[in-house]
Amino acid sequence: MAYLFVGEGREYLLEAGERLETDLGILQVPDDVDAGETVETHLGTEFVARALRGPDLFHHFERTGAPMMPRDIGLVMGHTGVKQGDRVLDAGTGTGVLAASLGRAGATVVTYEQDPEFAEVARENMELAGIADTVDVTAGDVTEEIDELAGEFDLITLDTADAPAVVEHAPELLTPGGFLAVYSPFVEATSEVVKTARDAGLEEVESLETIQREMDVGERGTRPSTAGVGHTGYLTFARNPV
Amino acid sequence: MAYLFVGEGREYLLEAGERLETDLGILQVPDDVDAGETVETHLGTEFVARALRGPDLFHHFERTGAPMMPRDIGLVMGHTGVKQGDRVLDAGTGTGVLAASLGRAGATVVTYEQDPEFAEVARENMELAGIADTVDVTAGDVTEEIDELAGEFDLITLDTADAPAVVEHAPELLTPGGFLAVYSPFVEATSEVVKTARDAGLEEVESLETIQREMDVGERGTRPSTAGVGHTGYLTFARNPV
Amino acid sequence: MAYLFVGEGREYLLEAGERLETDLGILQVPDDVDAGETVETHLGTEFVARALRGPDLFHHFERTGAPMMPRDIGLVMGHTGVKQGDRVLDAGTGTGVLAASLGRAGATVVTYEQDPEFAEVARENMELAGIADTVDVTAGDVTEEIDELAGEFDLITLDTADAPAVVEHAPELLTPGGFLAVYSPFVEATSEVVKTARDAGLEEVESLETIQREMDVGERGTRPSTAGVGHTGYLTFARNPV
Amino acid sequence: MAYLFVGEGREYLLEAGERLETDLGILQVPDDVDAGETVETHLGTEFVARALRGPDLFHHFERTGAPMMPRDIGLVMGHTGVKQGDRVLDAGTGTGVLAASLGRAGATVVTYEQDPEFAEVARENMELAGIADTVDVTAGDVTEEIDELAGEFDLITLDTADAPAVVEHAPELLTPGGFLAVYSPFVEATSEVVKTARDAGLEEVESLETIQREMDVGERGTRPSTAGVGHTGYLTFARNPV
Repeated sequence: MAYLFVGEGREYLLEAGERLETDLGILQVPDDVDAGETVETHLGTEFVARALRGPDLFHHFERTGAPMMPRDIGLVMGHTGVKQGDRVLDAGTGTGVLAASLGRAGATVVTYEQDPEFAEVARENMELAGIADTVDVTAGDVTEEIDELAGEFDLITLDTADAPAVVEHAPELLTPGGFLAVYSPFVEATSEVVKTARDAGLEEVESLETIQREMDVGERGTRPSTAGVGHTGYLTFARNPV
Repeated sequence: MAYLFVGEGREYLLEAGERLETDLGILQVPDDVDAGETVETHLGTEFVARALRGPDLFHHFERTGAPMMPRDIGLVMGHTGVKQGDRVLDAGTGTGVLAASLGRAGATVVTYEQDPEFAEVARENMELAGIADTVDVTAGDVTEEIDELAGEFDLITLDTADAPAVVEHAPELLTPGGFLAVYSPFVEATSEVVKTARDAGLEEVESLETIQREMDVGERGTRPSTAGVGHTGYLTFARNPV
Repeated sequence: MAYLFVGEGREYLLEAGERLETDLGILQVPDDVDAGETVETHLGTEFVARALRGPDLFHHFERTGAPMMPRDIGLVMGHTGVKQGDRVLDAGTGTGVLAASLGRAGATVVTYEQDPEFAEVARENMELAGIADTVDVTAGDVTEEIDELAGEFDLITLDTADAPAVVEHAPELLTPGGFLAVYSPFVEATSEVVKTARDAGLEEVESLETIQREMDVGERGTRPSTAGVGHTGYLTFARNPV
Repeated sequence: MAYLFVGEGREYLLEAGERLETDLGILQVPDDVDAGETVETHLGTEFVARALRGPDLFHHFERTGAPMMPRDIGLVMGHTGVKQGDRVLDAGTGTGVLAASLGRAGATVVTYEQDPEFAEVARENMELAGIADTVDVTAGDVTEEIDELAGEFDLITLDTADAPAVVEHAPELLTPGGFLAVYSPFVEATSEVVKTARDAGLEEVESLETIQREMDVGERGTRPSTAGVGHTGYLTFARNPV
């Protein structure tokens, strides 16, 4: 189990028992450290151990590509109502923040990543997030394993270029009322996912675009940020009727 | 435990053992019914039992006001990284979909609702959602109990007009790295929450506005919906540094 | 020349010399009426004559389809910098609010409408707007007249399904630095227009989506409208380099 | 009258008769140059003379602050239906792109700028835009001249911190059916303008926020830009009933 050690404007990710030489002295993490505890460097600077929370995963996971942003992970969670005990089929894993976030909310996740090296990194990220037991990262192509997977998933989450190849099998994979969530950056791919979901007999098919902006609260007044927040991806949701 | 019985375009929310006269015959739910099972009316129409998922709570909870929408619940979940074992302080409960969603993701929730009748409805909603054990609905004013609550919450979620009165005590209430999330429909209230959070010494204070639109995929092409999706509320997030 | 006669919450569009029986008495418009003057019904109710302004055209033009909204007309004007003396090629006319607005800003407009009956209605709308002299509504297909039109337009505005067939000839039609503006409701059509504009050698090609929301200012505070404002169309702009 | 001389990826703003040494040779602009003509440097590189269009004003006016963007200028034009012959009262001028754009659409504009040096720059910008005859830049405070101005403006456009001080006099200044347009970056100021407009008896008061995004059309598909476009300002419109 890793913790963030925060102090004097610095933030280090360290495991229990780990030792780090910092410019504020050597930080020796006790083997039995717990969240909320304070550890001093040998020069006396205090660092507080913080448990990793969702947005920390986004910042501290080793990356194999652009990870899904906290807002999109949240939208998947909210629109599908992920909960403890859910069985989730996820592809492609990538950095793994979505799979990890679902796992931390109590779901058991099977996640497919085509690139074996990326899968290995994702596995290490799951260790870091403390959910290696419930999130199973598989190196491989999910479309080749549809038959073995057929069963009862409560949720399918896809962030792959060939999402439609899985979407057409969603009715065999999902439990009654189970949800599909597909992330696609482009309109054309989104459109194809929507059509495939409809053709497969899924219901409540809806594709959502989300624009999120920060509000600037300052001396002169309040306004949306002039910096702007760009597009991430469209999220398409659908539901298995029976 | 209640299930949704879905068939022939109808959807009934029924408890195990419950009996309902429908226009398709009498539906007698077995005491040992389980999600995914099929139950026939005495006239032979089949209904499939569906476990309730997050968006179902939004539609089937008894309402005491406009419930928070799935997208906003999701944004709270994503931006705060809610997970199993989290201890959450929530106010005001209202219909209870946020508290229920956090509870279903494995958090232990203490939620305050000022109106005793609303609190009672929320309690029944928690029963329906199957998380009455971990979501404690308290009738009362959270601002009067700050001292007793001081402890270690991982997350504070507020949807109350007097949110600033709680925000100023957030550092005493939150664990190191713990998150505050405040929902406010209006700019002025949002601005006040932001300023209070800054004054209280919270960090990573950001206020987000989210615009979500449905994409219409049709014969003639793809476009954002002409129907439009209106504003719900601003979400302000902040974090306890230590 | 027509005026709006406004009084007691009523609004009538009447020509000089016209006579109208209203529930507030007979309104006889003098032949030499002018904007700003007051006219009384025979029962003594006062109506003020208002000159028609742009947004009035939107509301009072006879419609042959959904007219372009004031905001989109404005965006065309702002992004192309329409001005007095500009020569504009417009297709398809439709109700004619865009052509009329450009004409009222001093441009000379040739506008094509394929449906002869719609063209006739648009011509009457130009009379109403007082710019029949400078806005020439032609019944026909602009793509069949590209050769005759080749010359020096400062601006081409298109709101037609086959816009790309004109866009590819834009360099022959436009003056150096002249602008093209294309309105398309759908992403796929927009994408095709962009590609055609690039292939034709146009520069500064950009396609814009505009989301506009009303702000509600009320007793409880200020917020974006909960009603939402839907998508109208994408506007693609491009410029002739030489 | 100035023209843009465009060639070999360069763009120079030059007056008739002006001479410029460039790295591609000396460019001597003939006294009788006209838009669309080609001028060669003494080394034989061709430059095409382009008349300045609206968006060119935005890029080539000398700036005394951030000029209003083409989209916002367009929205003012579209929502108020500016046209030839309109009489406009504008404050504060700033760089002058709004005043210039209204002037180029045929309006006669009186524009107030408090800073005398800024006013002088704006005057030069009007020369450049070829509308110094119809756009009168006055150095001074418009609120001190309300009484003299009382008359019949078709349009009032304000981009000043003390806009409400003018808004309350709008009914005396505007013609029946005339429009007010106020630009404000902040919510609080916008809210005050709305309330003042209502109190003054103006009608059709609406405050709009506009979010504009570029669409990226690429090999992999079409999507809204990931770059994002930030907030500029709220535009409040209102109308004089009589």
